[in-house]
Amino acid sequence: MAKDFSTRAENYAQWYNDLVIKADLAENSAVRGCMVIKPYGYAIWERIQAVLDRKFKDTGHSNAYFPLFIPKSFFSKEASHVEGFAKECAVVTHYRLKSSPDGKGVVVDEDAKLEEELIVRPTSETIIWDTYRNWIKSYRDLPILINQWANVVRWEMRTRLFLRTAEFLWQEGHTAHATMEEAVKEAETMLNVYADFAETWMAIPVIRGVKSPAERFAGAIETYAIEALMQDGKALQAGTSHFLGQNFAKAFDVKYLNKENQLDYVWATSWGVSTRLMGALIMAHSDDHGLVIPPKLAPIQVVIVPVFKNAEQLTLISETALSIKSSLEKRGISVKYDDRDTHKPGWKFSEYEFKGVPIRVIIGPRDIEQGTVEVARRDTLEKEVLQITDIDIKIEHLLDQIQKNLYDRALAFREENTFRVDNWEEFKKVLDETGGFLSAHWDGTAETEIKIKEETKATIRVIPLNNPRETGKCVYSGKPSDQRVIFARAY
Amino acid sequence: MAKDFSTRAENYAQWYNDLVIKADLAENSAVRGCMVIKPYGYAIWERIQAVLDRKFKDTGHSNAYFPLFIPKSFFSKEASHVEGFAKECAVVTHYRLKSSPDGKGVVVDEDAKLEEELIVRPTSETIIWDTYRNWIKSYRDLPILINQWANVVRWEMRTRLFLRTAEFLWQEGHTAHATMEEAVKEAETMLNVYADFAETWMAIPVIRGVKSPAERFAGAIETYAIEALMQDGKALQAGTSHFLGQNFAKAFDVKYLNKENQLDYVWATSWGVSTRLMGALIMAHSDDHGLVIPPKLAPIQVVIVPVFKNAEQLTLISETALSIKSSLEKRGISVKYDDRDTHKPGWKFSEYEFKGVPIRVIIGPRDIEQGTVEVARRDTLEKEVLQITDIDIKIEHLLDQIQKNLYDRALAFREENTFRVDNWEEFKKVLDETGGFLSAHWDGTAETEIKIKEETKATIRVIPLNNPRETGKCVYSGKPSDQRVIFARAY
Repeated sequence: MAKDFSTRAENYAQWYNDLVIKADLAENSAVRGCMVIKPYGYAIWERIQAVLDRKFKDTGHSNAYFPLFIPKSFFSKEASHVEGFAKECAVVTHYRLKSSPDGKGVVVDEDAKLEEELIVRPTSETIIWDTYRNWIKSYRDLPILINQWANVVRWEMRTRLFLRTAEFLWQEGHTAHATMEEAVKEAETMLNVYADFAETWMAIPVIRGVKSPAERFAGAIETYAIEALMQDGKALQAGTSHFLGQNFAKAFDVKYLNKENQLDYVWATSWGVSTRLMGALIMAHSDDHGLVIPPKLAPIQVVIVPVFKNAEQLTLISETALSIKSSLEKRGISVKYDDRDTHKPGWKFSEYEFKGVPIRVIIGPRDIEQGTVEVARRDTLEKEVLQITDIDIKIEHLLDQIQKNLYDRALAFREENTFRVDNWEEFKKVLDETGGFLSAHWDGTAETEIKIKEETKATIRVIPLNNPRETGKCVYSGKPSDQRVIFARAY
Repeated sequence: MAKDFSTRAENYAQWYNDLVIKADLAENSAVRGCMVIKPYGYAIWERIQAVLDRKFKDTGHSNAYFPLFIPKSFFSKEASHVEGFAKECAVVTHYRLKSSPDGKGVVVDEDAKLEEELIVRPTSETIIWDTYRNWIKSYRDLPILINQWANVVRWEMRTRLFLRTAEFLWQEGHTAHATMEEAVKEAETMLNVYADFAETWMAIPVIRGVKSPAERFAGAIETYAIEALMQDGKALQAGTSHFLGQNFAKAFDVKYLNKENQLDYVWATSWGVSTRLMGALIMAHSDDHGLVIPPKLAPIQVVIVPVFKNAEQLTLISETALSIKSSLEKRGISVKYDDRDTHKPGWKFSEYEFKGVPIRVIIGPRDIEQGTVEVARRDTLEKEVLQITDIDIKIEHLLDQIQKNLYDRALAFREENTFRVDNWEEFKKVLDETGGFLSAHWDGTAETEIKIKEETKATIRVIPLNNPRETGKCVYSGKPSDQRVIFARAY
């Protein structure tokens, strides 16, 4: 299982792809750019969904569902949105097939051509704001705080499992507010929900900030984002939250009667994370032995493997193993007891190591005699022999330690790989030699941003929130600047 | 809110539509045939999902996700499947839009035409079996027990909210087995999961059975189904489970090495329920006062409404109300305390009655003095004044009673509306005058089935499982028959 895959140093991209495929997380499908998410990968996604869904509800949101298809004309209504989204997308033009003349298959029925083409949603602002128009009459109808779990399609030419696929799964929140202040606050609240999720659950430290105008969502006034650093020194945007101003309300004519009995346009936000988070999760923690999954999101948190020579030994071991399993499950810990006799213990050890199960418990005949078990942790690969007494408490504690260690390790990595850079040669050198986050002065112009991107492929990932003011000179143009921003090459 | 909607007697179809729209469950969208599921409707669907998902996992299944799109050629591979599914469907032909020459919108980019058209999945057997081919090598890889929660599209010409929409949400299980016996058992197990869910959670009694050959799923050897009776005497198919034999394995060349080291085709099942269940739930229990939702699926199980004249009274009442709310929530009961001063109590009473909240608790100043509350149940509209002592236990018990009463009422209705019919004139008369389930002899031929359908619009809903053998004559042809089957007009 675990054999025959690339190390990070050899080929990081291949290492990532090998992990995804060989750990049974996902694979490419017969449809170009669309992936199959396999049960083990989907189980992680279900945990991500469950935690986020609870956080959305705790912050007052409800789920709903809007159509998969959007009439083509809707995309022309918001001027900047059409530039950003209407281009690379799946277009439905017909609604019927018929038997082919040769009787050997089916062909598109040209008589069943749609009057107006339908676009498979790349994001749902347009169809949702078209719907909100009928829901909102007065300030009493506001705020509307809705989230949707859905699939979306963006016809990407170069795809990578989880990181960039034509179809992906995501959630998209779409809220409507009576005032600008409330909408801005909502966008910031959801950024913090994402950041807390990334740090507490995914064990990935993130920088909270806003995007430069060039990197904003098409149609947004302000795009908030959390940015994470992967082990190869590239950045990954792990969630965005947009303050949309009144742009979509104006495009779809959504007005409300305010408390002063005057008509005004509604204020909007949208925010989303996607199955891309799976890519971040895999890349942030895993190593050359395989996946490393933070305990809080691991489908299997503890695996118990018996080591036995005969049925009699297995019976004895199973008694202890099942008792441990039961005591762990009472603490809400998910446990797999793998007593299959079709695979050897060694095979199982590397299998679960490869699949990133946080803790492996091994029980052999001598353990039974001595009242011990061997406990191995996936993050450090350390093993220790523990007394069975209070093993449930010890393991619960160890899971917390692993979660914390993964976060600390990722944070230390980020700190080691964040560089204050003050001249252009150094900027290029750091990017090429180590990568990472480059904290550098920028003159605030789109021209400079574009030139930096053209010359180095690095982009402004984020202008950190509460960024300290600091007088300096733009790393590229030398023009005056009053703050540093974070540059990186990115996924 | 509740005013101005049709009664069942006046216009059943209109009553249903009014309920769905005015109780904020769903509405039609800007896209023909596609619905918007609103937060209150979606909250019920989420409960349905949560319960079913738990049942699927308890029976050994895992979730996964397969592509939204299916290459057109896949539909030609299973001969009967193409007839049943490849016809009315959404066809993606292009993958890009471009700015229109007049600069005023977007048009389809004719240069971005797909080599092979993609079909938006109407059901996923084809893409899944194409994928399973690579997953299955030997009997050790079996069984595969996978479920998917997804959206699907069937281009229906006449749509009705929840009951028949172009896009709908569903789950589809797709399993692969080494033996026929195991696959048949799986199909039956899932039929029983659906039946138990319908009866225990939705409070809808169902008849378990198999479909006649003409009503089978396209590609199935046997289609198992549960059939429910609505209040207008029409049947509604509430779930299907298909034994697919080796049809899809043969179509997609999925073979495995059995224990005897010989190659054989894999055996398959598929099974699904959809947002159509929402239609069944609404129609089975609701009345001329609005929705009636079984407690086990109600997003709000108990609403507490304070009746007060001033802030001082509200403060006193709120103290008691919040204490009751908290004690109910400890029992896992979902409670809403509606202390808004923007709406009068009478408005709130009819609002929650219309929305089908199972129990309404009213607390006024005199209740506080006397240590009582008024409790109204939605199913019977009965009210009683109860002492606050142990109110949590009393309400929990009442929720159980309501759940049971809804089931009993629906069962009594079905029994009153199931008729043993032995001649053709009576068959037509019963159908026209009362509707309901008609238990009648059938000669077993497709010709008779088609003629009955043509003359009466009634179809064979189901041949009940464990059907008693009984010698008789076909109600239509007079030919010999050895069992009765269930006819009805259906949704």
